[in-house]
Amino acid sequence: MAYFDAASAAPPHPVARQALLAALDEGWADPARLYREGRRARLLLDAARETAAEAVGCRPDELVFTPSGTRALHDGIAGALAGRRRVGRHLLVSAVEHSAVLQSAAALRAAGGSVTEIPVDRTGRVAPGAYAEALRADTALAVLQSANHEVGTEQPVAEAAEECRAAGVPLLVDAAQSLGWGPVPAGWSLLAASAHKWGGPAGVGLLAVRKGVRFAHAGPADEREGGRAPGFPDLPAIVAAAASLRAVRQEAAAEAERLRGLVERIRRRVPALVPDVEVVGDPVRRLPHLVTFSCLYVDGEALLHGLDRAGFSVSSGSSCTSGTLTPSHVLRAMGVLSEGNVRVSLPVGTDAADVDRFLDVLPGVVASVREQLGAPAAPATAPAAAGGLVVDALGKRCPVPVIELAKVIGDVPVGGVVTVLSDDEAACLDIPAWCHMRGHDYEGGSPAERGTAYRVRRVV
Amino acid sequence: MAYFDAASAAPPHPVARQALLAALDEGWADPARLYREGRRARLLLDAARETAAEAVGCRPDELVFTPSGTRALHDGIAGALAGRRRVGRHLLVSAVEHSAVLQSAAALRAAGGSVTEIPVDRTGRVAPGAYAEALRADTALAVLQSANHEVGTEQPVAEAAEECRAAGVPLLVDAAQSLGWGPVPAGWSLLAASAHKWGGPAGVGLLAVRKGVRFAHAGPADEREGGRAPGFPDLPAIVAAAASLRAVRQEAAAEAERLRGLVERIRRRVPALVPDVEVVGDPVRRLPHLVTFSCLYVDGEALLHGLDRAGFSVSSGSSCTSGTLTPSHVLRAMGVLSEGNVRVSLPVGTDAADVDRFLDVLPGVVASVREQLGAPAAPATAPAAAGGLVVDALGKRCPVPVIELAKVIGDVPVGGVVTVLSDDEAACLDIPAWCHMRGHDYEGGSPAERGTAYRVRRVV
Repeated sequence: MAYFDAASAAPPHPVARQALLAALDEGWADPARLYREGRRARLLLDAARETAAEAVGCRPDELVFTPSGTRALHDGIAGALAGRRRVGRHLLVSAVEHSAVLQSAAALRAAGGSVTEIPVDRTGRVAPGAYAEALRADTALAVLQSANHEVGTEQPVAEAAEECRAAGVPLLVDAAQSLGWGPVPAGWSLLAASAHKWGGPAGVGLLAVRKGVRFAHAGPADEREGGRAPGFPDLPAIVAAAASLRAVRQEAAAEAERLRGLVERIRRRVPALVPDVEVVGDPVRRLPHLVTFSCLYVDGEALLHGLDRAGFSVSSGSSCTSGTLTPSHVLRAMGVLSEGNVRVSLPVGTDAADVDRFLDVLPGVVASVREQLGAPAAPATAPAAAGGLVVDALGKRCPVPVIELAKVIGDVPVGGVVTVLSDDEAACLDIPAWCHMRGHDYEGGSPAERGTAYRVRRVV
Repeated sequence: MAYFDAASAAPPHPVARQALLAALDEGWADPARLYREGRRARLLLDAARETAAEAVGCRPDELVFTPSGTRALHDGIAGALAGRRRVGRHLLVSAVEHSAVLQSAAALRAAGGSVTEIPVDRTGRVAPGAYAEALRADTALAVLQSANHEVGTEQPVAEAAEECRAAGVPLLVDAAQSLGWGPVPAGWSLLAASAHKWGGPAGVGLLAVRKGVRFAHAGPADEREGGRAPGFPDLPAIVAAAASLRAVRQEAAAEAERLRGLVERIRRRVPALVPDVEVVGDPVRRLPHLVTFSCLYVDGEALLHGLDRAGFSVSSGSSCTSGTLTPSHVLRAMGVLSEGNVRVSLPVGTDAADVDRFLDVLPGVVASVREQLGAPAAPATAPAAAGGLVVDALGKRCPVPVIELAKVIGDVPVGGVVTVLSDDEAACLDIPAWCHMRGHDYEGGSPAERGTAYRVRRVV
């Protein structure tokens, strides 16, 4: 069995386990108390804060521990917005941030604030200058991830930080995916991260706020963690988080090099082994351990189940695996195919043999899902009809609308048009992505009596 | 060494430790994922929820896990208020709730809502009918603890629940101190608790919301825990929390009986061993493991340090130990002495011999602190002056103003008045409490040029 979903949760690092056990015995008391057990807990907490601050690249008194990365983002964004309430209530985020950031943005909108989403290119990257352009006089905060959690693309954090600095706007960097690999480029004002992403335990997030950044904790607060993270601290988990961060950092350079090679192998081999695949994300400026690809004519959930049966645990941004029938907002913002999506994120220590076995197994699993769905084995060649053609895919879920389109495209002559009627959420993403992959012209969608009518002009 | 501060944090129960270790190996993956590791995590989470719900006395789908008891209270109160926003923005709390409840109340006030604090009697107990009387047409929520965390007094939860039910107002019960000892009486609408209070790990709170209670999570939310507790769940800690709750409950009846005997021994012996002590809290309707007393003419911090040096870890509600120079709001609401305050809360398994040793050590520690402060060894007896007398205790901190008062009360005749000038926060509590203990008349305080002038008439 091979677990390839480190970007969701990394298996605990051995150091995390050891530190957690030791701190369970030594660190269960309240660090705010004056007696022996409390003083011992306080020493552990102070040491953990110093270790984490060193890894983050900040002062210990700039860093607090939160109950999760999500809470670090929710509370960090709310606190930064509240601290600059007088400046305005405009928030800048990239379109491919973690859902916790977008949830905070939605909460701000609901409370009467405004949000600008910075678009990304087809690799998932924000353009240089994009933050500078979107900053406004009433912008209270800008948020940018250090690297994307779904496709691995690194963002131009240093550039965005400089753009924000020039405008006097604080930048919060979501470093959840990258902190285990190295510090974030300088220039950030706030930074959030999550321990279970680097092999630490669940239950610990980090929130760093640079001295001088206006911050006002939103909601009820207590005296813990400088008033920024209420509630009794989970000290054993905090100690384990800090110890494991130091441990993974010591191995990071060598392990990144090794995993980068394994990911490169996947990036290169998958398109050769599996027909009709799009590997997404920046090929160079990316996380070392993460690769994402999408397979035409494949149902993401069936693909995940097939890989699980074959012993591989991966995740997917396809609509049918999300529970909401909406494809990943990241893939959507990139404008790439969402059907049959697979994210492989290798944990530290991944065996190269497991990656090879994955590459052995994948083509068969994809072929089997395609066969069950009746996907076209190869593009049809002979045009059978001369006029326009309408495919009614109403009520059919991803990837069926694209499969139906692929089946009939050969039935119109070059220059002819196929219209696909679909009410599936993923179609607006996958039909243009299919055209891009196949070299046909996507002419847009327009509202139909039910769903949307997507027009595709055959080119080749 | 003896740790007598279970009400702050109980040492982890052996079952908590075992369950945490097992779940570290089995429960680190994301329970929302479809693959093997995710399904295994989901099974652990579901089982933990069932166990906890059984102990609470609710349905599993009514209970969510939060990162702490504080967050359960903050988020539970905010969610219940938001859910009944149309009814109004009035909140009812007792004056002796945990600070997390009072922080929520302060946040509501700051946001334009209103709060009524229900007073308590000298034992710390809310009067029957007090909630009924304070309920208003715009009351969105009422909050009452099951038992007080500082003095152990049990509250009339069933009666308050019935009063709230009759008015159609939900009652949130803070069961943090009592849940390990048994379920809360029926009738509550929401319930909050904290695992590290019953011997579970830090990092886990419970929030139960009865079906039919209007609830709208306030602030950004994700899909975790029914939208009520955002962030990746700390599954190992959750599993340990549920397992330890079941374990402590199995031992609760016998252990409560045993600890009740030890606490009774402290309640009876301390006033006999130490002069000028007030044991506070309800002598009968109380938590089994907790007793609080205050020592006249004693500096709480010095007392804590003395007991720590003698090997006993206890806490205190005295002003000088709080960092804010404000005495405990609980003691203040009860109108009892706050100086020289000691809370003893016995963990499960406390050795009777340790309690006896505490009783051996305490009189010497108290006497030593009093000696250092120059406290009166015995009440003065011979009146030396016939008129009123003014004691200038400005700039002097608790317990000095009361010590100065005690030193001169014998200098006025019976019927004569001593006026104490003090700017110490604790004096308004401790001077009346001293009068109550000594049988003198407290005639009230009035603003002076600096601080307050407290008038005391000698009676005996």
